[in-house]
Amino acid sequence: MTLPAEIVSQGDEVVTGLVADTNAAFLARLLEAAGLGVTRHVAVGDDRDAIAAALGDAASRAAHVVCSGGLGPTDDDLTADAVALAFGLPLEERPEALAQVEARYAAFGRPVGPSGRRQARLPQGALLLENRSGTAPGFRVDVPGSVLWFLPGVPREMEQMAREHLEPALAALGLPRDRIHVVRCVGIGEGVVQERMRDLRIPPGVRVGWRAAIAEVQVRVRAAPAVPDDVHTAYLGDVAAALGDRVFGVDSGPLEEVVGHRLRDRGETLATAESCTAGRLAAAITRVPGASEWFLEGAVVYANEAKVRTCGVPPAALAAHGAVSEPVARALAEGIRARAGSTWGLATTGIAGPTGGTPDKPVGTVHLALAGPRGTNHRRIHLVGAREPVMDRAVGAALDLLRGAL
Amino acid sequence: MTLPAEIVSQGDEVVTGLVADTNAAFLARLLEAAGLGVTRHVAVGDDRDAIAAALGDAASRAAHVVCSGGLGPTDDDLTADAVALAFGLPLEERPEALAQVEARYAAFGRPVGPSGRRQARLPQGALLLENRSGTAPGFRVDVPGSVLWFLPGVPREMEQMAREHLEPALAALGLPRDRIHVVRCVGIGEGVVQERMRDLRIPPGVRVGWRAAIAEVQVRVRAAPAVPDDVHTAYLGDVAAALGDRVFGVDSGPLEEVVGHRLRDRGETLATAESCTAGRLAAAITRVPGASEWFLEGAVVYANEAKVRTCGVPPAALAAHGAVSEPVARALAEGIRARAGSTWGLATTGIAGPTGGTPDKPVGTVHLALAGPRGTNHRRIHLVGAREPVMDRAVGAALDLLRGAL
Repeated sequence: MTLPAEIVSQGDEVVTGLVADTNAAFLARLLEAAGLGVTRHVAVGDDRDAIAAALGDAASRAAHVVCSGGLGPTDDDLTADAVALAFGLPLEERPEALAQVEARYAAFGRPVGPSGRRQARLPQGALLLENRSGTAPGFRVDVPGSVLWFLPGVPREMEQMAREHLEPALAALGLPRDRIHVVRCVGIGEGVVQERMRDLRIPPGVRVGWRAAIAEVQVRVRAAPAVPDDVHTAYLGDVAAALGDRVFGVDSGPLEEVVGHRLRDRGETLATAESCTAGRLAAAITRVPGASEWFLEGAVVYANEAKVRTCGVPPAALAAHGAVSEPVARALAEGIRARAGSTWGLATTGIAGPTGGTPDKPVGTVHLALAGPRGTNHRRIHLVGAREPVMDRAVGAALDLLRGAL
Repeated sequence: MTLPAEIVSQGDEVVTGLVADTNAAFLARLLEAAGLGVTRHVAVGDDRDAIAAALGDAASRAAHVVCSGGLGPTDDDLTADAVALAFGLPLEERPEALAQVEARYAAFGRPVGPSGRRQARLPQGALLLENRSGTAPGFRVDVPGSVLWFLPGVPREMEQMAREHLEPALAALGLPRDRIHVVRCVGIGEGVVQERMRDLRIPPGVRVGWRAAIAEVQVRVRAAPAVPDDVHTAYLGDVAAALGDRVFGVDSGPLEEVVGHRLRDRGETLATAESCTAGRLAAAITRVPGASEWFLEGAVVYANEAKVRTCGVPPAALAAHGAVSEPVARALAEGIRARAGSTWGLATTGIAGPTGGTPDKPVGTVHLALAGPRGTNHRRIHLVGAREPVMDRAVGAALDLLRGAL
C-alpha cells in the first residue's frame, strides 16, 4: 500500500478550460516518482468556500496534498483564506514573508501596495516556502494525518518551488519506489499494441499503461518494489518481443533523437525535401540539441515549381503522375541528397487535407522516399485524421523509414 | 446564477500525470460556451469505488456531469461498473450497443471477443450515444437532479461525441450565454499586457482572463448576459487601445492565418529561409488550409554551405559576421525571395541553445529579416527560455515582422 497523495488546483482559468491543468500532471509525476500513490486531482475556481471544501476533503484522505494557484496579490487569490476557513488557522502577516514579497517587488522596481502585502499573510503555524521567481511565497501546513503544500499557479514558479521544497521533503521519507520503464513504438496503433500484448501474462505487482502520443505509442511498465528484478526484466523482454521491430527504444529519447544519434555515431548526414509535411520533418530532426552535426539542409517544396527548381524533379513526372506519387517522392529524395551532398535524402509528398483528395488519392495519402548509398526506398501510407495529425504522423513514418535503413 | 456543471476524468494515465487532462479543458470550454458554469473537475484512477464516489459527489452538486474515460474493452475500464455501483443501476448487455461494437470491430477486420463485448454493457435505463470513430459507445444516465454524460477518454473520439451528442442537448436548454471575446496579441509578455490594462476599469458583470500561449498572449473578455452591449463594446475598445499595435486580431484565427489571409487578399506570395527555426516557420504558415495559395517555398538552411548554395549568402558575410548576424539574415531573406520569385522573403537565424552562445551573441539571440518590394527590414530580438520555446517565439516574431509590413 503506497502513501496516498492528492492534488488540488485552484483557478477560474483551469476550471473554465482556458488552460489545461499541466500543473497537476507535473506534480503527479513528481509525487509518483517519490513513491507516493496519487489517487485524485481536484480543480476548483476562485471561490473560497469551494477551495476550503476541496482542501478539507483531500486532507481527510491523503497523507500529502499539493495545491497550486490562488496565492497572488489580487482579490481572486483566495487560497490562504480558504486554508484559514478549512482548518481554523487565522491568517497573520508574517515579517519574513513580507520581507520576501518586498524583495521581489524591489527587483521589479515596484512598491508593495496593499494588494501586494496580502501575499505576506500566512495561516497560523504555516511554514514559509521561498519563491525565487515570483512575488507570491508558498507555504506548508501540517494538520493531523496530512501535510498540505501550497505553491503558486504560474507553472515556472510552481515547478521551481516543487523541486526546491517538496521534492527533498518527499525524498526524506525514503519510500520504496516503483521501477518504471517505457517501451516506445512507432508505426503501430494503440489498439494493435494492446492486441499484440493481450496474451502476455502480467506478473503480480506489475502495472501496464498505454499512451498514444502524436506519432508513437508508449507502453509504460511499472513494477512495485516487491517484484523481483528478473520477473520484471523477463516481462519487459516479452513486451519487446511481442512488439518486434515496431519498438524504437526502451527508456529512450524520442524517435528523432534515436535516429539522429545513430546518424551521428555512424558519421552520416541527412537532408530533407518536404511537400505535405512542410517543415515539420526538419523541425522534428532539429528538436535534438546538436542536430547540426547530422542535419545539413531541408527544402520545403510546396509549389511544383519549387520541386523542379530545388530538387530537380522532372516536370514530366509531375505531369504524368502528379505531385503526390511514387516517382515524385523518389525524385525529391534523390534530388535533395544530391543537392546537399548528404548520406541520406528523406522526402515526403502527400495530401494533408482538408481538401485536395481524389478517389484514387484520398486525403491522407502520403508517399515517403529515402535515398541513400544503396539506392532509394519508397513507402506509400494512408493516414486518417485532420490536417495537423496527418502531417505529424507522416513525420513519424518518414523518420521510421530512415530508422529501418540505419 | 448559472446552472452548475462538473467534469470527472477517469484513468491512471491522468491521475499519475502521464498525460495532462486536456479532455477536461475541452469539455469545460464547451459547457461554459453553452451557458453552464463549470465549478469543479475531478480526476480519479482506474478504481471502481473511487470513480463511483466521484460520480455520486458530482451528481449531488451539479445539473450536468460529464465523465470521460474508462469505457474501453480492457479490465481497467471500469466506468460502467462504477455507475452501476453509484446509482444502483445494474449493467445489461444492450443489443443496439453490441451492434455498434460489432460494426466498429468489423471495420477494423477483427472479431468481437469477450473483452470487446464488455463495451456493450450499459447501466439500466442509460441512453446509448454512438461513437463513430472508436469501439467504445458512450451513454447518458439521468438521475434525480442531474444528467450524467459518459464519453470515451481518447480525445479525438471524446471531442467528436461531445460535439454530436452533448452540445446539441445543451443548446436545447436555451441558457443565456455570456458573450466572450478574445483579444490576441503578439510580441508582448503576459505581465506587460496586465500592466497596460491595470488602470482600465472593468465594468460589473465583465470578467477578464489572460492566457499566455506559445507565441502570443490572449485576453479573454467575458460579459454576463445582463451587461449592456455598449458597455461591453466600450471596454473591449479600451483594451484594444491599451494594447495598441500588439493586437493582431479580435476573435480571429492565429497569427499565421491572419497574415496568410492578408497575403491571399493582396494576391501576394511568400517564401522562407530558416536557420534557427529549422522548418517551424514553414510549418506554421502551412498550418492554414489553402496555404499553397500564398506559400511557395521554404529553405531550411542549417549548414553554412546550404545558406550559400540555396540562398546565395556571400561566404564573406558568413566569415566576417558569423551565421547569426544582420547581414546574413538580410542575405537569406533576399536570396530566398529571388530564388522563389515571391513577393516576400522572410528569414530567421539565431542561437536556440542549449549551447552555442557567446558573450556578444548569447543563447536566444535571433536576427529576423523581411525582403519585399520596398527593400529589406531587419529586427534583432533576444528571447529567454529553452530551445523549443525560443524557436517557437522566433516564429511568432518573424510572422509579426511580416504582419507589420502588410
